[in-house]
Amino acid sequence: MHKKNYGHQRGGICGEYCKKKTIKFIKGFSLPSYGLWLYKIHPSCWSSAYILGLMCMPGLSAYVGFIEICSPKKGEYVFVSSASGAVGQIAGQFAKLMGCYVVGSAGSDEKVDLLKNKLGFDDAFNYKKEHDLDAALKRYFMDGIDIYFDNVGGKMLDAVLLNMRQHGRIAACGMISQYDLEQSEGIHNLMNLILKNNRMEGFVVTNYFHLYPQFLDLTLPYIKEGKMVYIEDVVEGLESGPSALIKLFAGQTVGKQVIHVSNE
Amino acid sequence: MHKKNYGHQRGGICGEYCKKKTIKFIKGFSLPSYGLWLYKIHPSCWSSAYILGLMCMPGLSAYVGFIEICSPKKGEYVFVSSASGAVGQIAGQFAKLMGCYVVGSAGSDEKVDLLKNKLGFDDAFNYKKEHDLDAALKRYFMDGIDIYFDNVGGKMLDAVLLNMRQHGRIAACGMISQYDLEQSEGIHNLMNLILKNNRMEGFVVTNYFHLYPQFLDLTLPYIKEGKMVYIEDVVEGLESGPSALIKLFAGQTVGKQVIHVSNE
Repeated sequence: MHKKNYGHQRGGICGEYCKKKTIKFIKGFSLPSYGLWLYKIHPSCWSSAYILGLMCMPGLSAYVGFIEICSPKKGEYVFVSSASGAVGQIAGQFAKLMGCYVVGSAGSDEKVDLLKNKLGFDDAFNYKKEHDLDAALKRYFMDGIDIYFDNVGGKMLDAVLLNMRQHGRIAACGMISQYDLEQSEGIHNLMNLILKNNRMEGFVVTNYFHLYPQFLDLTLPYIKEGKMVYIEDVVEGLESGPSALIKLFAGQTVGKQVIHVSNE
Repeated sequence: MHKKNYGHQRGGICGEYCKKKTIKFIKGFSLPSYGLWLYKIHPSCWSSAYILGLMCMPGLSAYVGFIEICSPKKGEYVFVSSASGAVGQIAGQFAKLMGCYVVGSAGSDEKVDLLKNKLGFDDAFNYKKEHDLDAALKRYFMDGIDIYFDNVGGKMLDAVLLNMRQHGRIAACGMISQYDLEQSEGIHNLMNLILKNNRMEGFVVTNYFHLYPQFLDLTLPYIKEGKMVYIEDVVEGLESGPSALIKLFAGQTVGKQVIHVSNE
């Protein structure tokens, strides 16, 4: 990719910005000094699944939302929506690594299968097949939910609020079900935050770059030991961008959506 | 009040339970050992404004929501709804004592006057005279709100979400506007929790009795120095209970609603 104004050379990968000092372990890495959301890496060092996924924005987002905001304890019940997505799949793996019981929701049977058989979730369900999300959650969490990693907002969030346990935590990472609505759906069950002493906290990952070293300290050993995996949905060529974006919002992407612009 | 089963004697005051060790400073105090929400005090020691208000459930609620959950910093912008109510009036006074700028909303001009001229709020407004709550909040908080102490929920909460600043905190203490609705109003602006890295935390004060000593450490000096006041709305006789409750939900109570059952 050629971005002369940003000091890049052909052959780099377009990705997310992370502070230089925190990713010095990546051989061949060079970072623009002005902190934009583009950087160049040597493509032979690490696959894009690590550079764009596990070790960068999605990984840090999962860390911030799940570890930093929700402070998980072993044995807690965790629910992740959009669980096979870029961030959700990492949040769910963190949950398992922390000794939690984790269930994910996704929008196809193929994704549910991935969650259960590749990403290590204890259970998963296809929310599109559920007419009553409250009933579905009660089926998977008979004793309620301690931690909800929210990527979707809307009706799922409203149903989760009915199923949270005392002192539960909700990390609001995204609300993709609401992004293309003229007016977002109303959330009716917030009273449960009070009754159950729940905390709901939103975050934008760019506010948490200072936690990147801690994130790496936790994550790198797992990656090196092969205890974390990452699923991408790679399309070829910049011309595939618009259709990839439409797929993303239609819930047809499996894993993180990546556009492979060029090898040069 | 005579409650033989609870070990009380005539002449006590019906109030909230607080751990015995934490209120030993009240002369003549005797506490049932089984931890119910009733206790007996000698009525000559302290007025009910202290026993039922500043130093008990409302005071501890304001402390938990404002101090413990919202961690105020000097100079921050604070908004309190139902600000002349049992808890709101204390939260607002805490805000001033912590060096914050505090605005309150209430449901009558009389209450607004109390907020500004007796309770020390920097400003206040009558929400019933505002057709556009978002516009009203923008008028009083040109730079946005750092801390919202929520006693009402509903439309006010939705408007506040549009006006929160980055890293703002919302203490969800009550949602009185929703209690008598068949279905609570929808909250549409929760996406702002994400965009502004906001935290919203609900609480029931009974979960925080362990903080009562810290609360007293902070509050008693202020009370002894006359730096905190408390407003009650006292009705006479148990037979006044139902109408007092109706007044409370109609927003006609000024200060904490107290039912004076008997002097004997």
